[in-house]
Amino acid sequence: MTFVDPLPQTVQFHLDKHCQNTHARAGTLKTLHGMVETPIFMPVGTAGTVKSLCPRDLVDLKVQLLLGNTYHLYLRPGCDIIRIFGGLHEFMQWHGPILTDSGGFQVFSLAKLRDVSDDGVLFQSHIDGSRHMLTPQSVVDIQDCLGSDILMCLDDVVPYPCDHTRIQDALTRTHKWAQECKDAWLKKKTHSALFGIVQGGMIKDLRRQSIDALNEIDFPGYAIGGLSVGEPQSLMYEIGAYCLDLLPQSKPRYIMGVGTPADLVHLVAAGCDMFDCVMPTRNARNGQLFTSRGTINIKNAAYKEDTGPVDPECNCYTCRQFSRAYLNHLYRSRELLAYRLNTIHNIHFYIQLMKCMREAILEDRFELFSKSVLSVYARTSVAS
Amino acid sequence: MTFVDPLPQTVQFHLDKHCQNTHARAGTLKTLHGMVETPIFMPVGTAGTVKSLCPRDLVDLKVQLLLGNTYHLYLRPGCDIIRIFGGLHEFMQWHGPILTDSGGFQVFSLAKLRDVSDDGVLFQSHIDGSRHMLTPQSVVDIQDCLGSDILMCLDDVVPYPCDHTRIQDALTRTHKWAQECKDAWLKKKTHSALFGIVQGGMIKDLRRQSIDALNEIDFPGYAIGGLSVGEPQSLMYEIGAYCLDLLPQSKPRYIMGVGTPADLVHLVAAGCDMFDCVMPTRNARNGQLFTSRGTINIKNAAYKEDTGPVDPECNCYTCRQFSRAYLNHLYRSRELLAYRLNTIHNIHFYIQLMKCMREAILEDRFELFSKSVLSVYARTSVAS
Repeated sequence: MTFVDPLPQTVQFHLDKHCQNTHARAGTLKTLHGMVETPIFMPVGTAGTVKSLCPRDLVDLKVQLLLGNTYHLYLRPGCDIIRIFGGLHEFMQWHGPILTDSGGFQVFSLAKLRDVSDDGVLFQSHIDGSRHMLTPQSVVDIQDCLGSDILMCLDDVVPYPCDHTRIQDALTRTHKWAQECKDAWLKKKTHSALFGIVQGGMIKDLRRQSIDALNEIDFPGYAIGGLSVGEPQSLMYEIGAYCLDLLPQSKPRYIMGVGTPADLVHLVAAGCDMFDCVMPTRNARNGQLFTSRGTINIKNAAYKEDTGPVDPECNCYTCRQFSRAYLNHLYRSRELLAYRLNTIHNIHFYIQLMKCMREAILEDRFELFSKSVLSVYARTSVAS
Repeated sequence: MTFVDPLPQTVQFHLDKHCQNTHARAGTLKTLHGMVETPIFMPVGTAGTVKSLCPRDLVDLKVQLLLGNTYHLYLRPGCDIIRIFGGLHEFMQWHGPILTDSGGFQVFSLAKLRDVSDDGVLFQSHIDGSRHMLTPQSVVDIQDCLGSDILMCLDDVVPYPCDHTRIQDALTRTHKWAQECKDAWLKKKTHSALFGIVQGGMIKDLRRQSIDALNEIDFPGYAIGGLSVGEPQSLMYEIGAYCLDLLPQSKPRYIMGVGTPADLVHLVAAGCDMFDCVMPTRNARNGQLFTSRGTINIKNAAYKEDTGPVDPECNCYTCRQFSRAYLNHLYRSRELLAYRLNTIHNIHFYIQLMKCMREAILEDRFELFSKSVLSVYARTSVAS
């Protein structure tokens, strides 16, 4: 069933500029909780906090859009508690825009048991083993309860590699669920947006089918799922670019779970607007820091006596105040402050990278800028 | 050997006011890195950080004096590294006053092997098993390298309970070391102060001997060690008050490693000026929070849906911004932010308690104020 109502005009996307030499674009996404300038990177705030940071840190870091994980928040603290606060914004005291995933990917990657039917996904909590079911209706209900500005559809996630029949099968289900999510969302009449998720594995024909099916349903924005799941980088870029090319120009496009600095540059060049990834935060907690000269691991003995900042080009709190030697000491001493200072630095790096890409697009020098990043990061080994 | 030089007048103590009904006093300690208003509580920054906090958090919390642990800093990162930075202030970017202990107590409580002779203490690092020796000369050298504003003498720490002979033996050694520390410190001609440490177990006669011996050597300030080591609370108060009574009025007095809010009130009333304790920081990391109505454990299921702040009377960042339900969620999710927000709250509580005691002394209402705190905390169970 397709609703004939027009899409609610609450989250609006405006294209500010196209790059003349690539598919890169700069845009503005208007949400109830504020403006988001694209291309944008969303730090991952899994369980109602970006690990080790306060909301005021995120404001200081000029984070514009935060990702929350529905799977985690649904299991703990649960909707009953978040509903008391009127949503995640008030619960965690982050007053900027929030995008939540549907939980489908975490059920696939974290839950103990996973039983997919056309109705939804039955799973067992990784926390206490309790059984739960996510359905297209329930993921919209949960994300609506969280008060997300951008909701994601439930999708059927397949492993990589995966055979054609299984992918096709999952795709049919993903499209059925997409329609059901849209129906559930429209009934909410909220100020949020709902994004459809393109699937289809590494098979271009299936990706095209997926985009056609989602276009038919019509969403305020589109995500590309099923990338960065173990495939070669070149294949990820190829499939990503293929999908981006087919998606409607006027809608925001989001590639989920990606990626390294090089990935972001490649995929912005291919026309992507939005990204999320645990890389800057998780790697920070493992001591890997992103710098204008490549990555460094602060645990390295070479930094024990190094009085310089992590990155002389960086203006973050960590680099303005502290030396590599101090950060090395904190990390080796397993001090909680190590995780915090490293996370501040890495998020700052990612946010600045996106800001610089946007400025470069607006000033017609994106190609030059992207080359300068890739000259460092195309060959940089990034832990994952 | 007693030096005839006058004490360097770099750290100065001024008594601002005596309480009329108790022995409580308000004073001001002037150091090269700033003024310290007493009575004062020093948060413990063991390894160059108050666990989970940045130096700017300490400034926000109005911390006036920070404690650093010589044992930890000597072992890691070591003096060679801290010397490159010209001291701990620059290394950790805390620009207020620092007091460091001598390491003696940590050798006693943490090190694997401990062999005490009249020369010093031989011990094995709890980190890598390496062997080291702390002597009166070396603890002054290390603390001087750290750039401490207030240094502590090396003392011979005995367990509790302990027999008279062993205490007497340790006391003789403690006094010998105190003289050697004083000699070493005078030769430094620094802007720091050196405090002697009164020992003598729970035996008043030995405590009196100790105070006489240290007075003879003459220090800019005096600490009382060997309390809060397992003895009954009433005995701690009795021995503490006994020592405080005998110490010179004009010098600052510091009881080491104490204590609960009730302990602080009792011992300020007995004339103590300075305290340090891991209690607010360690208990924060275990979920125990101090409030104007007693302690709560934020892990408790009763707080799962509680939208109120930890303490309605509290003005700290944690209480201004977050609910008990959110803190309960963070703690149950083992989120790093839990440790940070809890620590901010508990340090704020301790700092405010001391500030209120000082104001009450200055305004001739200390007795009334202390009763109001004790009406809550004298019977409150505090985890340790």
